Amino acid sequence: MKISVHKRILDANDQAAAANASLFAEHHVICINMISSPGSGKTTILARTIKDMKPGMRIGVIEGDLKTDLDAQRIRTTGAPAVQIETNGACHLTAAQVSDAARAMPMDSLDMVFVENVGNLVCPSAFELGESARVVVLSTAEGDDKPAKYPGTFMKAAVILINKVDLLPLVDFDLERVSSDARALNPDVKIFVISAKTGEGFAPWCEYLRTLRRH
Amino acid sequence: MKISVHKRILDANDQAAAANASLFAEHHVICINMISSPGSGKTTILARTIKDMKPGMRIGVIEGDLKTDLDAQRIRTTGAPAVQIETNGACHLTAAQVSDAARAMPMDSLDMVFVENVGNLVCPSAFELGESARVVVLSTAEGDDKPAKYPGTFMKAAVILINKVDLLPLVDFDLERVSSDARALNPDVKIFVISAKTGEGFAPWCEYLRTLRRH
Repeated sequence: MKISVHKRILDANDQAAAANASLFAEHHVICINMISSPGSGKTTILARTIKDMKPGMRIGVIEGDLKTDLDAQRIRTTGAPAVQIETNGACHLTAAQVSDAARAMPMDSLDMVFVENVGNLVCPSAFELGESARVVVLSTAEGDDKPAKYPGTFMKAAVILINKVDLLPLVDFDLERVSSDARALNPDVKIFVISAKTGEGFAPWCEYLRTLRRH
Repeated sequence: MKISVHKRILDANDQAAAANASLFAEHHVICINMISSPGSGKTTILARTIKDMKPGMRIGVIEGDLKTDLDAQRIRTTGAPAVQIETNGACHLTAAQVSDAARAMPMDSLDMVFVENVGNLVCPSAFELGESARVVVLSTAEGDDKPAKYPGTFMKAAVILINKVDLLPLVDFDLERVSSDARALNPDVKIFVISAKTGEGFAPWCEYLRTLRRH
């Protein structure tokens, strides 16, 4: 019973995700679904990415949180358009929510839309949103055992951003372990080591984003 | 449909949680449900708490993870008994899982059992396990906006442990903001500011645990 209802919810979500994928393609917009634990630095990464890629890449952001529009406010200070989805307690974004938010964005004047999912390393992984790629963010403060402990999420990532590398001297975090555990699950995953605070590592990350561009 | 199935799952869980509460009371054991984001430092906090409270307080640990028994292995190096639950992808522990794990613990030689829930600041909050108290851990590296963004979880906490206070000079984290946001949601919540790495703040936290003792 539980499983069949869960399956029906996922089937309905997959249909909405396919419609989103068409909508983004139609407008020549790349959509990226960003997934991580709470506090890994997703919003700070986005704010710096938006600034570093101006004016060649026009970026918009769809923000997901249980409550508050704090993150959309932060993104708007960069000049980029941002739409906040408040899930009111739900642990992930759905494709239907992203569809509504995408229609509220100025799609024809954008090249890329980031969806910053609800801070949760588990549940968002099960819900396709119509994205072209998934980026999983892991902060060095969270520890190097996360790919081993959350394999489902890391398995589906096109990219892993290892953030807060400026904290490396103060935390126990073995970059080699993360890379080898992640590549064992997902041999083609791209890994960028960055600090959204200092800007370290942003050049190759932005170069990668340029390769995704649709027009 | 979705809501009524969800309600039935929660009702069944509440019954199992009540049975767990009776089981713990019968053995004069205090059960504490620990909830946080991935990588906030729950296992490190537990390892230090176990050592600091020996021999007066005999502690056992039930570990929840999607995959691996890495955390149970770490706890066992302290000499404390630990039982690992692997949820195989599920985002929270259920009372039925905790029931099985509790029965595998040497309950009559314990004063306290910590349940380290799956690293997830959202979903575990909806599932009672039969605990006497909930402790929510927030690391300073995660940012000071978490009570505002995850109100449901912070509202149900008896205690908030603010961990990794040794990183404060390097991160943007306003202790006052966290305390006032948390107390606005939950006026009676106890807040301890700690570092599981250095031991800072452990004396009042352990003193609090002693007040919970059943015999």
